[in-house]
Amino acid sequence: MIQAKGMAAMAAKQALVPYSFERREPKEHDVVIDIKYCGICHSDIHMTREEWGGGSPFPMVPGHEIAGVVRAVGSKVTKHKIGDHVGVGCLVDSCAECAHCKQDLEQYCVEGQTGTYGAMERDGSAVTQGGYSNVIVVKDDFVLQIPKALPLDKAAPLLCAGITLYSPLNHWNAGPGKKIAIMGLGGLGHMGVKIARAMGAEVTVLSHSENKREDAMKLGAHHFLVAKTQDVFQQNASKFDLIINTVSSADIDMTSYFNLLKLDGTMVSVGAPEKPLSINVFPLIMMRRSYAGSAIGGIKETQEMLNFCAKHNITPEIEVINPSQVNEAYERVLKSDVRYRFVLDMGKI
Amino acid sequence: MIQAKGMAAMAAKQALVPYSFERREPKEHDVVIDIKYCGICHSDIHMTREEWGGGSPFPMVPGHEIAGVVRAVGSKVTKHKIGDHVGVGCLVDSCAECAHCKQDLEQYCVEGQTGTYGAMERDGSAVTQGGYSNVIVVKDDFVLQIPKALPLDKAAPLLCAGITLYSPLNHWNAGPGKKIAIMGLGGLGHMGVKIARAMGAEVTVLSHSENKREDAMKLGAHHFLVAKTQDVFQQNASKFDLIINTVSSADIDMTSYFNLLKLDGTMVSVGAPEKPLSINVFPLIMMRRSYAGSAIGGIKETQEMLNFCAKHNITPEIEVINPSQVNEAYERVLKSDVRYRFVLDMGKI
Repeated sequence: MIQAKGMAAMAAKQALVPYSFERREPKEHDVVIDIKYCGICHSDIHMTREEWGGGSPFPMVPGHEIAGVVRAVGSKVTKHKIGDHVGVGCLVDSCAECAHCKQDLEQYCVEGQTGTYGAMERDGSAVTQGGYSNVIVVKDDFVLQIPKALPLDKAAPLLCAGITLYSPLNHWNAGPGKKIAIMGLGGLGHMGVKIARAMGAEVTVLSHSENKREDAMKLGAHHFLVAKTQDVFQQNASKFDLIINTVSSADIDMTSYFNLLKLDGTMVSVGAPEKPLSINVFPLIMMRRSYAGSAIGGIKETQEMLNFCAKHNITPEIEVINPSQVNEAYERVLKSDVRYRFVLDMGKI
Repeated sequence: MIQAKGMAAMAAKQALVPYSFERREPKEHDVVIDIKYCGICHSDIHMTREEWGGGSPFPMVPGHEIAGVVRAVGSKVTKHKIGDHVGVGCLVDSCAECAHCKQDLEQYCVEGQTGTYGAMERDGSAVTQGGYSNVIVVKDDFVLQIPKALPLDKAAPLLCAGITLYSPLNHWNAGPGKKIAIMGLGGLGHMGVKIARAMGAEVTVLSHSENKREDAMKLGAHHFLVAKTQDVFQQNASKFDLIINTVSSADIDMTSYFNLLKLDGTMVSVGAPEKPLSINVFPLIMMRRSYAGSAIGGIKETQEMLNFCAKHNITPEIEVINPSQVNEAYERVLKSDVRYRFVLDMGKI
């Protein structure tokens, strides 16, 4: 077995503490990765606090925004070699047989994809442990190549925040001539601005306050709207082809936001509030609008996203911290006091 | 002016009573129609009872499922001639200039389409009055040709119930190889079954009880599911490409229904509950599903629908009644005690 060091929640809602554990010996198709950096995703907080339902296995080493360097490869690995810069995102396995997997949509695997942490391996051998650690062993098909143009610390958040925004922007055809709004300028939203802009769309940030106007424009937004008063909603009615909703609060006046969509426009939620939303159907009916959801992206699309980001020089805005600062970082994430993503320096574990 | 007789609500929430009123003299582009039949739509009840917000003008002659015969035409009318069988649906005018009107989507007119009743004419000259009457004067562009293969009494409900189902089935590509579910087997739902079947789709009716199983199969459904227990929802998870929701109640466990949709599947609501729906975003996110709305159809599409129905011998199941029975009929509609649409015989006014 391979010795690993990480930060783990030993039980639900507890602070993360240093934790030693083991990774499996690499099998034929496995890649052993020395983790250099791991991003902190809001879902890590939900998971360690069991806010998305109970039954999570503990101890739990969170983290699914992993960037590192290949230490070793199994005998049948051809896609990756020692020294490669690689990444691992939210999933480390899927059935590979279902219609969705065969369409490169492993994130929607009918059998249920295997999460990077807190999930049972498909052979039942162990519970997966994530990237708040110094080493991980992952099946080659679920390891991404990180182009050398992307620094590893900044590449890490692309593996979740990046693909979570890239995939719906890609699927709903953001591009030249399209007006895209990004609701919420946080870890997810700021990636949305950069990616949508690089795709050639006209990008507007919808925020609750003036605070982030300057940031939004620097990140590449063409417009910034404080979406709080009915005046603003009315002046911008039927304006957008696509709204990406990164706000994971249920306290949103959805009718006002739906009315910002054009005929046949779509709002896509990429964050899930714990509570249900209250939705009036009229604004959907009256302009044939849609409300949709989207989850991360498949492996092929994630590689495409990494290549796209390298080509367009897109990286997240990050604050690199030591693993020992993770609990403090969680508190700051909950207060939205981060611009725009924490990244753990796993070399300092 | 042209003398008209009809049934009107003299004030909100009051029973309808016989009512004499005037129609405008036909202008160059007007068609004068002797109304033979008018369907009763649930929205007539909402409108006369001001259940969709106040401010409706009274007296109100409801009715937007109008079938009749051309009595006279204005000097510039070329599309219709005396004696033609014609229909009028939910709208009698639109701006004709906006991007939506120019795409034959007058139902989504940016300026607001002019409803067949209870709306101000675009020139401000009068409030529109609907089809519970013996004669109507309508601009030629908003008059539909009813193919002779369709009897006028059965053609009437096609003008709202028919197009309301045809349009989303058409827009979301119902057809061979597609699995379509229709939620609710009422005036709208039963048209959905017939039209989706004729389009070549595999059709399932989702109902709350066994009561309508036999009817559903007779109408052309391939399958009938009593969608009440979690067993049924689980056994049919991820099955449908498209669900048309004709149920205008907000007391629906939307999560269970969303889970019936395939990856990238869509539920389309064509009826609007008065209260907002409670929607959990997870089932949308987890299979990139969409929830959408759709309103009737444009004039061009309505004509296409009438031709389609004539070609495929599709007509609603109706119960023809005298105008004097309208109030009793309203009560029966509210109890879902009609299979499946009341049609007023306006010759008996």
